[in-house]
Amino acid sequence: MSDAVIFKAPLRVRYAETDKMGVVYNANYFVWFEVGRVELLRSLGYSYHDLETAGASLPVVEANCRYKQSALYDDELWICASIARLRPGLITFNYTVERQSDGAALAEGSSTHLVVGRDMKKSRFPEPFWTAFQKAAGLG
Amino acid sequence: MSDAVIFKAPLRVRYAETDKMGVVYNANYFVWFEVGRVELLRSLGYSYHDLETAGASLPVVEANCRYKQSALYDDELWICASIARLRPGLITFNYTVERQSDGAALAEGSSTHLVVGRDMKKSRFPEPFWTAFQKAAGLG
Amino acid sequence: MSDAVIFKAPLRVRYAETDKMGVVYNANYFVWFEVGRVELLRSLGYSYHDLETAGASLPVVEANCRYKQSALYDDELWICASIARLRPGLITFNYTVERQSDGAALAEGSSTHLVVGRDMKKSRFPEPFWTAFQKAAGLG
Amino acid sequence: MSDAVIFKAPLRVRYAETDKMGVVYNANYFVWFEVGRVELLRSLGYSYHDLETAGASLPVVEANCRYKQSALYDDELWICASIARLRPGLITFNYTVERQSDGAALAEGSSTHLVVGRDMKKSRFPEPFWTAFQKAAGLG
Repeated sequence: MSDAVIFKAPLRVRYAETDKMGVVYNANYFVWFEVGRVELLRSLGYSYHDLETAGASLPVVEANCRYKQSALYDDELWICASIARLRPGLITFNYTVERQSDGAALAEGSSTHLVVGRDMKKSRFPEPFWTAFQKAAGLG
Repeated sequence: MSDAVIFKAPLRVRYAETDKMGVVYNANYFVWFEVGRVELLRSLGYSYHDLETAGASLPVVEANCRYKQSALYDDELWICASIARLRPGLITFNYTVERQSDGAALAEGSSTHLVVGRDMKKSRFPEPFWTAFQKAAGLG
Repeated sequence: MSDAVIFKAPLRVRYAETDKMGVVYNANYFVWFEVGRVELLRSLGYSYHDLETAGASLPVVEANCRYKQSALYDDELWICASIARLRPGLITFNYTVERQSDGAALAEGSSTHLVVGRDMKKSRFPEPFWTAFQKAAGLG
Repeated sequence: MSDAVIFKAPLRVRYAETDKMGVVYNANYFVWFEVGRVELLRSLGYSYHDLETAGASLPVVEANCRYKQSALYDDELWICASIARLRPGLITFNYTVERQSDGAALAEGSSTHLVVGRDMKKSRFPEPFWTAFQKAAGLG
């Protein structure tokens, strides 16, 4: 899927995101992944809010992260997101957390989301989101 | 208001709640205050969920905290909550965060909440919550 | 590893842990996993604080979660933790998040941790933690 | 103190920062206040990390917030911070949270911080921070 769009969202580490080990607490990377996929969607011309207004939500069914080097307080990072897998009712994003200063990959992960409707039952991506995601996945 | 009920909810400090200074991050005390007022309500026989089901929410309009000694990772605390002021459409809770081991008061604060309906407009406490809160405030 | 200890820590969902979808935000399960492994360690007679005092920390190198059913505000849960893999310088925990009312498994996951010393370099579990973890892993 | 610098840091509301009421959870405004004061310091040419490296930390002794209108998911905000009071060993910041689209003030607050040294005992602002803060406070 060499044509998949990789979107890089800038992010600065907050004090609140560190823990007493002096580094970023592990759960916060999953918050950053959300920032990455939301900004990827925005780069396609849409907000996640638009998707919710269209009646679709994307609850997470699986998420994982591999931690390589610690992110530190005040670090400037890139949260890189791309679409790794796309089905009418399911999407998987890949993420890399990069340190801006030297490009070091601090963490990698992914998350898989179901498309559900307002009734929280399985659904499909509404247009124009489906077409936009297909393009971003390099499938359009 | 010497007859106000003071409810003490036990709480253990999580690693996620600390920051790189080695102590609990300041914003987390406001999360604990929520635990305190919710457990106070439960001690009266109701859950905050019940209140929401009855069509009323309690958005915060003011909150404050004075920090005296740092709470540390794994500390066992009491989150003490009481009703300081009660009006048909407004409630103020007082809080004290105590260390269980020696009773030291680590922090004190308060929060004031409006009662709003499902339309997010100003409303009043529905029964049986109004009567229960009056009793807990020492006014019943 | 049928003899591995499974420790169940009780936990009640906080309002702060929900998001606008009305369910618990996905990153918070990783905070709960920490509660699970810390309480597992405590059930063995030690605190994570003791381990840090002995000069060892357990930074996460991998974590994952599969979400099956949403945890809701005020739900009472069991955070079940067990040791899935144990090496002198590495440990993997498995987790299940269960709803207390009906035993439903809401989520499953795992986390793998390196043992590092005060210099943040790879190290080994100090005694008496190594022996305690071996027993809890059903290897003792 | 009409000459005090007011620094405005941009911030976009994260999904993780909302709660089941559909708005931003109250404790998160205190995290944003931290973003505001850190960026105010950076606008003076220093990072909070620099201050910590110089041996000084700024633990919070008091914080408060008045909530006027709810911040919503994906809102673009300004976190406005200024120095309201400055003593050799103490600083108070004022904050306003503004919605970028219409300039509405969603919340106002303040936080007061002691200066402590590495031993966590009361200390004074080291140079060049003292001079920089005096200028920013309109006292320089």
